[in-house]
Amino acid sequence: MTEFSAVKESLARQAIELPSWAFGNSGTRFKVFGQPGVPRTPHEKIADAAQVHAYTGIAPTVSLHIPWDRVEDFTELAEYAAEQGVRLGTINANVFQEDDYRLGSVTNPDPAVRRKALDHLLECVDVMDATGSRDLKLWFSDGTNYPGQDDIRARQDRLAEALAAVYARLGDDQRIVLEYKLFEPAFYTMDVPDWGTAYAHCLELGDKAKVVVDTGHHAPGTNIEFIVAFLLRAGKLGAFDFNSRFYADDDLMAGAADPFQLFRILHEVVRGGGLSAEAGVAFMLDQCHNIEPKIPGQIRSVLNVQEATAKALLVDADTLAEAQARGDVLGANAALMDAYNTDVRPFLADLRTEQGLDPDPMAAFARSGYAERVAAERVGGHQAGWGA
Amino acid sequence: MTEFSAVKESLARQAIELPSWAFGNSGTRFKVFGQPGVPRTPHEKIADAAQVHAYTGIAPTVSLHIPWDRVEDFTELAEYAAEQGVRLGTINANVFQEDDYRLGSVTNPDPAVRRKALDHLLECVDVMDATGSRDLKLWFSDGTNYPGQDDIRARQDRLAEALAAVYARLGDDQRIVLEYKLFEPAFYTMDVPDWGTAYAHCLELGDKAKVVVDTGHHAPGTNIEFIVAFLLRAGKLGAFDFNSRFYADDDLMAGAADPFQLFRILHEVVRGGGLSAEAGVAFMLDQCHNIEPKIPGQIRSVLNVQEATAKALLVDADTLAEAQARGDVLGANAALMDAYNTDVRPFLADLRTEQGLDPDPMAAFARSGYAERVAAERVGGHQAGWGA
Amino acid sequence: MTEFSAVKESLARQAIELPSWAFGNSGTRFKVFGQPGVPRTPHEKIADAAQVHAYTGIAPTVSLHIPWDRVEDFTELAEYAAEQGVRLGTINANVFQEDDYRLGSVTNPDPAVRRKALDHLLECVDVMDATGSRDLKLWFSDGTNYPGQDDIRARQDRLAEALAAVYARLGDDQRIVLEYKLFEPAFYTMDVPDWGTAYAHCLELGDKAKVVVDTGHHAPGTNIEFIVAFLLRAGKLGAFDFNSRFYADDDLMAGAADPFQLFRILHEVVRGGGLSAEAGVAFMLDQCHNIEPKIPGQIRSVLNVQEATAKALLVDADTLAEAQARGDVLGANAALMDAYNTDVRPFLADLRTEQGLDPDPMAAFARSGYAERVAAERVGGHQAGWGA
Amino acid sequence: MTEFSAVKESLARQAIELPSWAFGNSGTRFKVFGQPGVPRTPHEKIADAAQVHAYTGIAPTVSLHIPWDRVEDFTELAEYAAEQGVRLGTINANVFQEDDYRLGSVTNPDPAVRRKALDHLLECVDVMDATGSRDLKLWFSDGTNYPGQDDIRARQDRLAEALAAVYARLGDDQRIVLEYKLFEPAFYTMDVPDWGTAYAHCLELGDKAKVVVDTGHHAPGTNIEFIVAFLLRAGKLGAFDFNSRFYADDDLMAGAADPFQLFRILHEVVRGGGLSAEAGVAFMLDQCHNIEPKIPGQIRSVLNVQEATAKALLVDADTLAEAQARGDVLGANAALMDAYNTDVRPFLADLRTEQGLDPDPMAAFARSGYAERVAAERVGGHQAGWGA
Repeated sequence: MTEFSAVKESLARQAIELPSWAFGNSGTRFKVFGQPGVPRTPHEKIADAAQVHAYTGIAPTVSLHIPWDRVEDFTELAEYAAEQGVRLGTINANVFQEDDYRLGSVTNPDPAVRRKALDHLLECVDVMDATGSRDLKLWFSDGTNYPGQDDIRARQDRLAEALAAVYARLGDDQRIVLEYKLFEPAFYTMDVPDWGTAYAHCLELGDKAKVVVDTGHHAPGTNIEFIVAFLLRAGKLGAFDFNSRFYADDDLMAGAADPFQLFRILHEVVRGGGLSAEAGVAFMLDQCHNIEPKIPGQIRSVLNVQEATAKALLVDADTLAEAQARGDVLGANAALMDAYNTDVRPFLADLRTEQGLDPDPMAAFARSGYAERVAAERVGGHQAGWGA
Repeated sequence: MTEFSAVKESLARQAIELPSWAFGNSGTRFKVFGQPGVPRTPHEKIADAAQVHAYTGIAPTVSLHIPWDRVEDFTELAEYAAEQGVRLGTINANVFQEDDYRLGSVTNPDPAVRRKALDHLLECVDVMDATGSRDLKLWFSDGTNYPGQDDIRARQDRLAEALAAVYARLGDDQRIVLEYKLFEPAFYTMDVPDWGTAYAHCLELGDKAKVVVDTGHHAPGTNIEFIVAFLLRAGKLGAFDFNSRFYADDDLMAGAADPFQLFRILHEVVRGGGLSAEAGVAFMLDQCHNIEPKIPGQIRSVLNVQEATAKALLVDADTLAEAQARGDVLGANAALMDAYNTDVRPFLADLRTEQGLDPDPMAAFARSGYAERVAAERVGGHQAGWGA
Repeated sequence: MTEFSAVKESLARQAIELPSWAFGNSGTRFKVFGQPGVPRTPHEKIADAAQVHAYTGIAPTVSLHIPWDRVEDFTELAEYAAEQGVRLGTINANVFQEDDYRLGSVTNPDPAVRRKALDHLLECVDVMDATGSRDLKLWFSDGTNYPGQDDIRARQDRLAEALAAVYARLGDDQRIVLEYKLFEPAFYTMDVPDWGTAYAHCLELGDKAKVVVDTGHHAPGTNIEFIVAFLLRAGKLGAFDFNSRFYADDDLMAGAADPFQLFRILHEVVRGGGLSAEAGVAFMLDQCHNIEPKIPGQIRSVLNVQEATAKALLVDADTLAEAQARGDVLGANAALMDAYNTDVRPFLADLRTEQGLDPDPMAAFARSGYAERVAAERVGGHQAGWGA
Repeated sequence: MTEFSAVKESLARQAIELPSWAFGNSGTRFKVFGQPGVPRTPHEKIADAAQVHAYTGIAPTVSLHIPWDRVEDFTELAEYAAEQGVRLGTINANVFQEDDYRLGSVTNPDPAVRRKALDHLLECVDVMDATGSRDLKLWFSDGTNYPGQDDIRARQDRLAEALAAVYARLGDDQRIVLEYKLFEPAFYTMDVPDWGTAYAHCLELGDKAKVVVDTGHHAPGTNIEFIVAFLLRAGKLGAFDFNSRFYADDDLMAGAADPFQLFRILHEVVRGGGLSAEAGVAFMLDQCHNIEPKIPGQIRSVLNVQEATAKALLVDADTLAEAQARGDVLGANAALMDAYNTDVRPFLADLRTEQGLDPDPMAAFARSGYAERVAAERVGGHQAGWGA
């Protein structure tokens, strides 16, 4: 196995983007449970996100969701973030929470609704100009619930048209990253249900369009790491939305449901050069904390991704490649499992100490009193959540 | 194939219970789209449900959800229902929409929360006494999101204790019908995830406890009609919650996603004697109309169940049994498919005409102007939905 | 709904290709059950296939599997087929049944094995030259069983190389049709697991490479008709392998497990112009008869596809499009369901009578005595099956 | 976390039974790849199984499959096993590999076939008398492929009748352990598709009937550890068939596909007292080695189960229970994950050294030359596989 010292530098460079909405309330269609201290404003969300970075050292940016995080002055918001020790990152468009979007946004049969949705997407690029964000992340809830409800093919035409319009608006250093999802909220077809659809559209658009892999958006049994390897080979992997799941898009903490899968994904990332800056892959969390406290939930998730990355980096690539080349099924599998079975927590604790961080981020945050402080301070107002 | 005339009587006797909450707003965690004319009170929901019965003739009862449909005077509500031409049916308990239930209701690690949940269940039996309902339908959202979060076995103990307490409170003609569900809202374990769990608890409780089969609550690939056949054989099938799905618990209109499955289920119902009054099986819809108009959505669903039942009744049981006995795979399958492939709509239209109903319920309701009238009248107030 | 008379011509033109191997023995890993009268040679398989065409009128061609159907003289085989009233169709390569292919064929880590596999593929093009076949159907069992066993990306490189070599060998009127499959026989990764992978390779290869949709090769919950619509839009749908399934690649008779899905698929075919000769879509069966008699199993399957096609053609496209355009969810769904719920069997029986065929192919074949005759004649020799 | 020293005793007592058939050839329906040195007789299978025990110290018994392992003199076979250092264990009945069983064995519509199948089951109890085995493991491939093919309920009646007859034949210290499976080889219904069905039959039979959990036999998304916890609570968990899977019943090495799931299962075993002798739970492997060498594949699997057990034993039950009791979602999850993330391999290597075993069983076996020796010696004869 590779020496830990040899992978420290890669780990120190790792950067995982946090979603602002993970700090607000979320839930299922059955119930959203409120929690004390939940942020009420974009600023408070950023302050919370900054806590995660302060204790882990590898979560330096925050993803925004428009309109949930719309502010008058994005420059001021960026400055506030900088004061907290973090930066603004990806801009997420939202065209699924207005009554007009009942039958879709950019694929709606009604041209007026399509126009409205497109205007919002273009506005998001304006926001990117203001925040200096590189990526516009597009996820469409568009789809149909019943066979025959709308024309599958016509919806693809409408989708392609909207994507082309947004693509044309991008600056030189801006990108579209397009997310796919099997189902929910639509229950018969989603208009971008799988990586193949996202890939085909991105190919059509050009180099500045890449695919987002959300680890919770696949059919049961899908081999996600295959998709990751394939997209890296094709130069089309734009970003990850990490989270975990047992059933559908459960949005649990990354690595909580299937830590071995997360390791396998990161093994393909490492294998495919996806950790390098040139690859341009954005590593983001996209998950919801329905019943657990939100800041610790994010810290735990960041640590889980870090541990999986450390293990992936520890894979002895030469030993693995040799076993593969000689058709040694058990030997090759063992080379991979040796890294997975290693307990990397002590190494990572040492790395943190070297970086001036507390070796145990969960405990350190708990001791800090931050949670109690914001619970006391953030009284009144409207807690943030989906839709605000 | 059996003559249609021979099955008319069975069809005329069919009764499908409607859920009051199907007439209120519903949606996904992403968005609840409001619709004009949606009821604001239990009375208005019952009025809407009565429309479905008025046009189909086979939806004579309405299921209530407590506390969503709690009123001061249930006797008055029952009288109002009678005036509208329908009756009150099953009582559905709700122990999943208060902050106290974040970690469960009757299986919560906190005894105080368990007590509160149990009190609500017992209160529901009080409501049943008032409404004259036979069935208390219990669905628990209880479960855990993370491995280790709580003790699976201890939760079973707590569940058994609560069920026993409710069972002890039942009157002679009252029953518990216990529903199972694979996942959602809990994402690691549900405390009653499958029919085996529900069956085991009902067996322990006694004759007045039966299992509810909700057609949307199974793992992918589960053969639901097998479960139906098994439970009928065991005398433990209490009720159906019909709806349909392509992915998870999509709650689409019954029969919309897989009409052949609905037919196969009803074939097992017919085969197992489940249509007879003695079997005591309650046939209910439990579905949500997120994007389609609600009353027509219920009419369509009732018709879909009726059509599937008609086809199931048309199966020539003798031909089928003979082919099965001689091991004629294709012959036996053909006997079943012959009924399924028959277009029963003309027969059912005739049946309606004989009963003094319009042969085309969807068109008749559309012509009636009811939808426009309530949209105009029901202005202001708070539209009903999950949670109200 | 469209008049049946308006769709008769399309139905009369329909052609469904039969797989030679469907007439041999097949089974599961647990047991292959033999049946009396099973063919022992390619000629006997063709004779059986010709029976299906004789009774249905829409199964004029037979797919061959090399080496299972390898003969000395393909010209003679073609002549024999012509005498029986059918033609030779697609050539299926087989690189999965020799010990050398334990770790893959064209993606094997061993270059010698890759060369051997490629030679077989090129030999198949030779066979196509001899038979005049248009399509080379490629399905690779290649993949891995364990994480780390081989390098996912390197296998894609090897796959691309082999495909390019075969593509270069194609004549002007020849095509590659590339099949994907989620799993089995490999259990961790398949090298072409999904339509996206097949599509990406076909795009790279050029116009003579198209995707095959086998209806049994998807993850649970995959919307197959979406893929069909997408590939037709992209001009990349090459062929169908029809069969049906409840769980995995069950290879049951087409339309037997989910007739509604088959209808929805054919609706997208019709919608996307896939029935036209110009579209170049090959409609094939690919299924196994483990417990049912083989010729009747194929007749039943052909009829099921025909019935689904008839229903799809009956959809009133104008009514559907209008309802879709005005966002009428239930109206649009009803336009589709109206066609699905129609019993097309009487129309098709009439069509057969007009064509000089027996209106009931299943009964006519049963009466013919063919099954009894071949059971008596085909004694001794080695019954055909997978691997022979 | 619990000290390793405190769990050593439990680990030293662990016993995992090996399946004789794992040492023979196996494969998929597409191809069985032969391997050099594969056993040709029950004796050679036992000799190979004994190697696994010799290097791991925790695989002291071997499961037999009748008729695959039928011998003239089971007493002699038992003596041979003893000489090799192992004992004979569970007897597995096989009623799925004769042509008579095409439509089922004990549930076949033909009474003569049912009688034949029952006779075989009773013969297996005779074998148990001869071998001194405690458990008769029953897995039925019985089921149907097509809707209508046979009567679901009648098949349950026939199943119950056969089970009762076998149960009546059991000696005082003998048990039936009944296995369930979702699908394969039947594709529409299996007659024992899920744990609920097995549980209901076992309950009906009595105390000497228990349920077998095969980890590869569930629908996607099924929470297996819930079932384990439930069955232990009910006193009805009889045995495990360990193996692993990504898709269907892939029969990969235990722990290879989802090591975290294996750990969670063993956590519930420990929690529910399932490791104690009194619990009477048999821990068996049931898996096939299609492409990997067979003895190392079994050693690897045994080690995987041992590592998962060690981790499960290391869970600090008090810390876990306290976190659960106070509703500390992240704390409770962390208590579990702390054990899972521990690298137990050094501890287990030490344990082996203490026991006089080589600390690295895989390497020690590879060095031993056994594989090369049997490959040289076992030439000629018929390699064992499914069906022989």
